[in-house]
Amino acid sequence: MNGQTIRSAIFIAAISGIYMAVAMFVPAIVDLYYSNDDWKLFALCAFFIGGASFAAALATRGNPAPFSKRLGFLVVNLLWLTLTVIGAIPFYLSPLGLSFADALFESTSAVTSTGATVISGLDHMAPGILMWRSLLIWIGGVGIVALGLLILPFLRIGGFSYFRMESSDTGERPFARFAVFVRAFFAIYIGLTTLCAILYGTFGMGVFDAVNHAMSTIATGGFSTRDASFAAFDSLPILWTATIFMTIGGMPFSILILFAVKGRLDSLRDPQIATYLMIILIATLAVTVALRVSTGGSFAQTFSHAAFNVASVVTTTGFSSADYTQWGSFVVSLFFFLTFLGGCSGSTSGGLKAYRIVILIGAVRAGIRRLIYPNAIHSIRYGAMTVEADMVRSVLLFLGLYIFLWAAGSIALAATGLDLETALSGSITALANVGPGIGRIIGPSGNFAVLSDTSKLILSALMLLGRLEIFVVLVLFSPAFWRS
Amino acid sequence: MNGQTIRSAIFIAAISGIYMAVAMFVPAIVDLYYSNDDWKLFALCAFFIGGASFAAALATRGNPAPFSKRLGFLVVNLLWLTLTVIGAIPFYLSPLGLSFADALFESTSAVTSTGATVISGLDHMAPGILMWRSLLIWIGGVGIVALGLLILPFLRIGGFSYFRMESSDTGERPFARFAVFVRAFFAIYIGLTTLCAILYGTFGMGVFDAVNHAMSTIATGGFSTRDASFAAFDSLPILWTATIFMTIGGMPFSILILFAVKGRLDSLRDPQIATYLMIILIATLAVTVALRVSTGGSFAQTFSHAAFNVASVVTTTGFSSADYTQWGSFVVSLFFFLTFLGGCSGSTSGGLKAYRIVILIGAVRAGIRRLIYPNAIHSIRYGAMTVEADMVRSVLLFLGLYIFLWAAGSIALAATGLDLETALSGSITALANVGPGIGRIIGPSGNFAVLSDTSKLILSALMLLGRLEIFVVLVLFSPAFWRS
Repeated sequence: MNGQTIRSAIFIAAISGIYMAVAMFVPAIVDLYYSNDDWKLFALCAFFIGGASFAAALATRGNPAPFSKRLGFLVVNLLWLTLTVIGAIPFYLSPLGLSFADALFESTSAVTSTGATVISGLDHMAPGILMWRSLLIWIGGVGIVALGLLILPFLRIGGFSYFRMESSDTGERPFARFAVFVRAFFAIYIGLTTLCAILYGTFGMGVFDAVNHAMSTIATGGFSTRDASFAAFDSLPILWTATIFMTIGGMPFSILILFAVKGRLDSLRDPQIATYLMIILIATLAVTVALRVSTGGSFAQTFSHAAFNVASVVTTTGFSSADYTQWGSFVVSLFFFLTFLGGCSGSTSGGLKAYRIVILIGAVRAGIRRLIYPNAIHSIRYGAMTVEADMVRSVLLFLGLYIFLWAAGSIALAATGLDLETALSGSITALANVGPGIGRIIGPSGNFAVLSDTSKLILSALMLLGRLEIFVVLVLFSPAFWRS
Repeated sequence: MNGQTIRSAIFIAAISGIYMAVAMFVPAIVDLYYSNDDWKLFALCAFFIGGASFAAALATRGNPAPFSKRLGFLVVNLLWLTLTVIGAIPFYLSPLGLSFADALFESTSAVTSTGATVISGLDHMAPGILMWRSLLIWIGGVGIVALGLLILPFLRIGGFSYFRMESSDTGERPFARFAVFVRAFFAIYIGLTTLCAILYGTFGMGVFDAVNHAMSTIATGGFSTRDASFAAFDSLPILWTATIFMTIGGMPFSILILFAVKGRLDSLRDPQIATYLMIILIATLAVTVALRVSTGGSFAQTFSHAAFNVASVVTTTGFSSADYTQWGSFVVSLFFFLTFLGGCSGSTSGGLKAYRIVILIGAVRAGIRRLIYPNAIHSIRYGAMTVEADMVRSVLLFLGLYIFLWAAGSIALAATGLDLETALSGSITALANVGPGIGRIIGPSGNFAVLSDTSKLILSALMLLGRLEIFVVLVLFSPAFWRS
């Protein structure tokens, strides 16, 4: 680690601050349009944050440091920290009267596209603040796809989607076509959001609700403009629109990009996609059966709500159409464990991720075969490819750390006085960037507002750790990282 | 897999049945001594089970199959199944009126040295049945030490203690001194049990209580002769005796054996021992502080009860001196996660085990170093040794399967109608062979009797899976295992 690297990292973070300041004009314009006085707040924030960021960028400009892993780790951490802190400022200064811990929690939840909220009374809230929440979540979604497709693979973490892309593009390095890639990604991301908003509108949502929910859906975030989330709309077509677009949001964007750029869908053969869709399908059927047995509702209703809420948790979105924690013990426990899983790599979703599940299953099978035939070679397949030992080890290690952080987070939350159920589910819903937990307080019809400031800071730390795939943050705590 | 292997495995199981029949004379004599009519039941069981086992042994005798891994896996599974089923028969036929699922649960809990019980009214129970429970747990303890020190390493599962022994005995194969080893083990196991019983007696337990609790303590089982477990005795010296002997029961017996055989303690340097003791110490201090803050009891009382209950859970014994689930959320969550850990390999305890924790910590450190210096070699140390990649992979895999089985068990238990807390803690307390869970039903002052038969069978399966280190059971489900 040298001074030039640190300076370059701060420079990049400062530039992102300028972009954030520019983004604040969106809620300002929304508030102006709806004649809400908050526009002044956003304009003021944009002015000061833009100015401060510009000054920081000026102070740290110069020859950029050569790109290195250390610079990569530092930039990623600093970028998310910048997003979080700048995102929190309008919440803190708004007339909502949030404490700084509250504002930080809301902002962290947004930029990590988690969707846990401390704000209630959403139905009658100033539109600018609602738009700022949706915008942060949407920007967080962009960030996480970029991280998953471009940066993490380079840092050798969770690098499967890039690996896949490269292998589908034999002989061509995607970095060589960086501009094409970025344009295609934004076209798809904006296109999907627009399409989703149009469908929401068509099926009965107002324009403002439709746009906000569409942003939150594609980013698998989970913020709603209603306290009751999707229960406020009571429409099966809206539920299915959300289910489909959340599910798309949990798929690798590389597939859609390759389709846009090359017009072919052969990377759909990525085995994590089948696993991911199977998890959603099987869990949906299980919940449907459980609900039909216990409540006896109509199949269409039961199946739609089951699919929506399962997809919401597996894609780590966190919308809800009902308080599924009232659907009996089996469903509650199923949702608890679905919270750990997450969608595909290279998507906007969080959690353990389906490609790791595919590799874990392969590793268990190989491990059992090895016990019977210890001298044979037992390779682990990922679709048509053999998974390298390095990748298997990193997946298994991630699982170990993931479980450890969940346990440590749970104990820390319990130490603040939360009951076991709330602590266990709160810790994993934050770490997996899902949103709602289990239990009366943080369940799908609850709210994180009543938690102590300490709990909120613990949850915020877990959200960032989960979003940055744990290792990216932990590297900073290694003395070797800072050694020259 | 061929016919000779299966025949040999059944022959060995049949021989173990004969030993079990002989063991039934112990409760028969106890009942005779205390003038209880149950002695007829035990004598009858001994007669019929002994006869049936003898017939089975006769029918399957012949040239023994050459020792192979497959024979090893088959024998271990069959042995534990035989112990479980034969152990259940006296419970089923006794005047307690247990269903077969109840009897099977109690027997499984005993032979896996778990200590979860469906029987209440222990304080006024026939002494023969109590002795049978203690004897099963004590035999289970012998079995698990033999498994951990002699059989699993040969099957390449959890083979660390053997590996350690071998490395401490450079140039000499422990198998070559098998008879010395077995004699030393029995001398130590019986010696420790006797010493523990004498101390219990000295500090005020009656002879019968002292002997039964000593058997249950050394085997880290957890069955008591009192419904209130150690709360019935209300004596700090008794608590400390139990704490110390449970802690010894959770240490590798290879150390004590080496000391007995060679008169040296150098394998005390095994790093898992330090980790194991540190976990107990740190958790005890944390619980003490939490209790002092919330209740303000005297230090001696608080510290003693904290140490006892923490050691009870970490060593996977499952005694309790108080309902620690009333000690506040922090303590509850701590005990919940302590349930996962377990003692050392080559001990009578279950769970994840300390040597795996040592290797996991090493793997995480190496993983982080690898991110910073990807081209250097990052070896994982276990004390003075380098851990082979094979061992690291098997430890990580075990963790993955352990978590998966815990989740699957929890969902299955919830499907039988148990609440989330009971399902989550019931699944892990069975899988880790601890005994008590969290919550009103199966907590330290609860009882497993009220659960449904389905729940009891799920829990029994988890206890056996945990006791046989998962892989030994899973191998049977692999088609490759049965192929000729």
